[in-house]
Amino acid sequence: MLPIISIVGASDSGKTTFLEKLIPELTARGYRVGAIKHDAHGFEMDREGKDTWRLRRAGAGVIAISSPEMFASLRQTEGEMSLEEIGARFFWTEDILITEGFKRAHFPKIEVFRSAVGPNPICGPGDNLIAVVSDDEVEGQVLKFSFADYCGVADLIENRYLRDRKSRKMLVQLDGKQLPMKDFVEDFVLGGIKGMLASLRGWEKPRTISIHIRLGDDD
Amino acid sequence: MLPIISIVGASDSGKTTFLEKLIPELTARGYRVGAIKHDAHGFEMDREGKDTWRLRRAGAGVIAISSPEMFASLRQTEGEMSLEEIGARFFWTEDILITEGFKRAHFPKIEVFRSAVGPNPICGPGDNLIAVVSDDEVEGQVLKFSFADYCGVADLIENRYLRDRKSRKMLVQLDGKQLPMKDFVEDFVLGGIKGMLASLRGWEKPRTISIHIRLGDDD
Repeated sequence: MLPIISIVGASDSGKTTFLEKLIPELTARGYRVGAIKHDAHGFEMDREGKDTWRLRRAGAGVIAISSPEMFASLRQTEGEMSLEEIGARFFWTEDILITEGFKRAHFPKIEVFRSAVGPNPICGPGDNLIAVVSDDEVEGQVLKFSFADYCGVADLIENRYLRDRKSRKMLVQLDGKQLPMKDFVEDFVLGGIKGMLASLRGWEKPRTISIHIRLGDDD
Repeated sequence: MLPIISIVGASDSGKTTFLEKLIPELTARGYRVGAIKHDAHGFEMDREGKDTWRLRRAGAGVIAISSPEMFASLRQTEGEMSLEEIGARFFWTEDILITEGFKRAHFPKIEVFRSAVGPNPICGPGDNLIAVVSDDEVEGQVLKFSFADYCGVADLIENRYLRDRKSRKMLVQLDGKQLPMKDFVEDFVLGGIKGMLASLRGWEKPRTISIHIRLGDDD
């Protein structure tokens, strides 16, 4: 499973600034890092009046913007997807997904805390807090790192969540939901698919295979 | 195949404004419409200093923003993907992909023309122009619609590209490139995959199946 870690903290506590140290440290160690941000108040990527906003309002269900370096897509959803689903659908090629915010989800949390913006950390007991990043006094029995010690935080994440990660070979989703499979079943299905495709013209030892199937009422 | 139609025209000719009429007309007729815009000068969805920009610069390969109504993802790419690849990977659930711009691609084009912004249409012979939308005089033998006649343009698109569209059932990509398959091969592979998965716990007559496989050096 893709490990998911949440960096939480009060507004203006320095979450993004800390991530600007932590993510390069993790990528320098060879991990592919994905990041997600929650957007509660209007959509950061799609402001009123912009062309993408106008096309979306006109009824386009999926909108993309393409450039030589980047590709962005916006899609309408009905209700917010869970982090598990988002991780499985959009980040499964990455080694770890780091969320900025998402305090209410149940994933392991690292709180960024500055007493200048709020007297107490926002995480309490039961919040699955594994560490606090702060240069201030922090009460309670919790692992503490200074803002400068992003290497220590990277060590913690690496040791707990990345070292023993068995790289996932196959992900199967039915209507967007992951179909759980035991290892031997996964090997069986993977072998069957490879067996069928490898005999076709156009097969040249690919690194990745993606298959999308849309079933009708008769199927 | 997903039909791709390009709406082209000089800057400020009214492409987005026309799409704001055309897309609702097509969706009202029951088609799922995807749209894509080219972004040559810096990235419209990700401006310097915004959190997503900071996370990307920090090295996150995929960045997402999630809200109850929308989901957006940004990914770094090496070189611009072709419209075919973009269509196959990101719009295959839609019935048609309409591009704003992309004049240099070889897809059928509809030019939006206003003589107030430029003396002549930007499309010439060889540009695969199927119609011009304009309230001005347009020279040459080309189908012409007024700006108000978006229904006529929708008729043209529907009759030429949507009526006989055989709905694609399965898309297989190797390293992101579509693996072409004859119909009976597609039926064979689809049947094989369904046969393997339908016996597993968790199978409940899904509408869609997605499978992602990452192969290692030993596979």
